[in-house]
Amino acid sequence: MNTWKNNLRDIEPYVPGEQSKESDIVKINANENPYPPSPMAVKALREFGAESLRFYPSADATPLKEALAEHYGVGVENVFLGNGSDDVIALSFQAFFNSEKPIAYPDITYSFYPVWCRLLKIPYKTYPLTDSFRINVEDYKEENGGVIIPNPNAPTSICEGEEFVRRLMDYNTDSVVIIDEAYVDFGGYSSVKLTKEYENLLVTGTFSKSRSLAGMRIGFAIGSRTLISVLEAVKNSYNSYTVDSLSIAMGIASVKDDEYFRETINKVINTRERVTNEMRALGFTVLDSSANFIFATHESVSAKEIFEYLKTKKVFIRYFNLPRIDNYLRISIGTDGEMDRFLTELKNYLKEKKK
Amino acid sequence: MNTWKNNLRDIEPYVPGEQSKESDIVKINANENPYPPSPMAVKALREFGAESLRFYPSADATPLKEALAEHYGVGVENVFLGNGSDDVIALSFQAFFNSEKPIAYPDITYSFYPVWCRLLKIPYKTYPLTDSFRINVEDYKEENGGVIIPNPNAPTSICEGEEFVRRLMDYNTDSVVIIDEAYVDFGGYSSVKLTKEYENLLVTGTFSKSRSLAGMRIGFAIGSRTLISVLEAVKNSYNSYTVDSLSIAMGIASVKDDEYFRETINKVINTRERVTNEMRALGFTVLDSSANFIFATHESVSAKEIFEYLKTKKVFIRYFNLPRIDNYLRISIGTDGEMDRFLTELKNYLKEKKK
Repeated sequence: MNTWKNNLRDIEPYVPGEQSKESDIVKINANENPYPPSPMAVKALREFGAESLRFYPSADATPLKEALAEHYGVGVENVFLGNGSDDVIALSFQAFFNSEKPIAYPDITYSFYPVWCRLLKIPYKTYPLTDSFRINVEDYKEENGGVIIPNPNAPTSICEGEEFVRRLMDYNTDSVVIIDEAYVDFGGYSSVKLTKEYENLLVTGTFSKSRSLAGMRIGFAIGSRTLISVLEAVKNSYNSYTVDSLSIAMGIASVKDDEYFRETINKVINTRERVTNEMRALGFTVLDSSANFIFATHESVSAKEIFEYLKTKKVFIRYFNLPRIDNYLRISIGTDGEMDRFLTELKNYLKEKKK
Repeated sequence: MNTWKNNLRDIEPYVPGEQSKESDIVKINANENPYPPSPMAVKALREFGAESLRFYPSADATPLKEALAEHYGVGVENVFLGNGSDDVIALSFQAFFNSEKPIAYPDITYSFYPVWCRLLKIPYKTYPLTDSFRINVEDYKEENGGVIIPNPNAPTSICEGEEFVRRLMDYNTDSVVIIDEAYVDFGGYSSVKLTKEYENLLVTGTFSKSRSLAGMRIGFAIGSRTLISVLEAVKNSYNSYTVDSLSIAMGIASVKDDEYFRETINKVINTRERVTNEMRALGFTVLDSSANFIFATHESVSAKEIFEYLKTKKVFIRYFNLPRIDNYLRISIGTDGEMDRFLTELKNYLKEKKK
C-alpha cells in the first residue's frame, strides 16, 4: 500500500544564491565579507586543542555569551546563541509566534520569513513597502501575532532609525517584535540598547557578515531575560549543542578583536560609498545603503540583462525575479579590486548597449 | 497589558548530563570517546585555509556526503547531513511524522524523543521493554504514525539484529521507520544495507561517539532517495547551512581514516568487555552491551548511592531517576586508566558497605 508517502512533508524550501567554485571569479552575490576573519580568530583556530573535540561543546557556550555581553553592554542572561542567525530566527519563531493571529513583516524582505512560516505553520501577513522602499510604521498598528523587521532591510539595504523602532514598539505592546540586524554593523542604527526598555523586543545578529565567519555558523540574539529564557528552553528542546567548540573559540577571539572589526567595516563602507557614486554617475538609482551590499536599478537598461551579462564575465551578483524588484540588482561589496572589475564590466556592457 | 507573554512557548527542555571542568576527574557520563579524533582529521583542521571562512559553507556538503556514501556503499543521493544527529532526527520528525496517529517508540529510550514530540506537537505512544530490557517487535504491529528505535538502544546498550529489523519493517509498510544508530559502530548490527530494500527505512548516525568529534556537531542519515529528498527540503526550509566548513573538512578526513577508526573502536570494545567481567564478579548485573557504555545494577547496593559516592571521588557516571531504571547506572567506556580508577573507587565503596 505504501501509504507512508502520504505523511511526508511537502514543502518548497529556500533557494540560496549560486555558489561557484571556479577560479578568477568575482563572487559578490551572497553578502559575504571580502576580508578574512580577525587574525585573532585564526590564531584561536590554529591553537585549538583538537583532542578536546571528543567532548561535546559547552551547551550554553557561556564564554562566548560573556564576550558578546561585554561588547553590547548587556548581561550574559540577555544573550542567546545559535547555529547562524537563521537558526536563531527559526527558534525565535517557535518560541514567540504561537498566536492564532498572523505575524507581520514587509512584502519585500528576507525571503526565509515565509519559508519558516510555512514550515512552522505560522500565519503571516505582509505589508507593502512604500514606492521608495521604506517601511511604513503605521502599518504595524494592526493587531498581529508578532512582528519581524530586518533593519537594515534586505535586499533594499535601507535602515530605519530610533524613532521608527520606538513607534513600532509603542504600537506593539501585545506581541513580540524581532529586529533582524544581520547587516547593522555596516553603519546602521542598532536597537540593542532599546532591549533594556522594551521587554518584548528581540534583536538578532550574525558573525557571517561583519565578522567574516559565515563558514563557522554563529548567530545570536539579545533581549530581556524573559525572552532569552524562553528561547533557551525551545533550543534545548531541539538540539542542546548547536554551536560547535571551534565556533565558540573563534567567536570569542573575533569579538575581542574590536580594532580589526572596525577596520574591515570601514573599508567595506568606504568601498560601498565609492561604488554607489560611480554607479549613480552611470545612470543607476542606488538606494542609500547601511549594509554590505547595494540595491540598484538603471533608468534604461534591464537588470536581468546586466545580471546575465556579468555572469558570462564571471562577475556574480544577485538578481531576484520577484514582483516590484525584478528590475533591481543586489551587489555585495567586495574588495576595491573586485569592485573595480565589476565596474569595468558594467561600463563595457552599458557602452555596448548604447551602440 | 503585555498580553505578548501569553504567546510565549511553554516547554520543558531536555537536560543533558553534567559537564564538569575540574581537572583530575574521570568523566564517563556523556558517552564521549576517550580517544582523540583521527590524526588525519586534526591535520585537516591544522591545514584549513582560514581565510575561506568568510564564505558560507557548501549548503549540501557534497564531498562529505561522497565520503560517507563510499564508506557505507550507498549513493550520494542516499546521504543526508546535519548539525549533530539530534538535528538530523529533529528534522526527520518534521519530515516524516505528519500523521494524526501517534508515533511509536520504547518506554525506555533516548530521552529526547518525547521532547521533540512535545516541541513539534507530534502524538506518541510508548511500548514497554520486556523485563530483560528487550524490544518486543510484536508491539510495533499496531497502527502508528511512524516508528523510531535506537539500535543499540540507550541507555540499555542492547542491540537487536537483522531479523528484528526485518520484522519491524514487515509490520510497518505504512509509516516511516527510523533506526537511530548513534552507538552502532561499537559492535552492533547496522541496518544501513536494508535501506536499499525498504524505501521507508531511515538510518541515522553521528560523528560524536565512534569518531571522537562530538565538539564538531556532525550527524547524518542514510535512506532511499525519496526520504532523503524530503529531508533536504525540510532542512532547506529551516537553515540552509547547518554543517560548518571546518566540520565538513574534518568529517571527510575522519571517514577516510578507516584504520584509526577501527583501532579506537576495538580499544573501546576490549575495555568494555574487561570492565563488564570485573563488574559481574563484583555482583553487578551488566546488560550485554553493543555500545560505548554499559548499563548495570547491583544485587544489593543502591545505584543512586554508588553514583553519589563516585561523584565525591570525581568519577562522574550517569544516573537516571526514572521508573524501571532508577536502580541502574550508565557508565561510558573511558581509557583503561580511567576505568581502573572507576573500578578501584567502586571496589572501595562496596568494601565499606560490607563492613
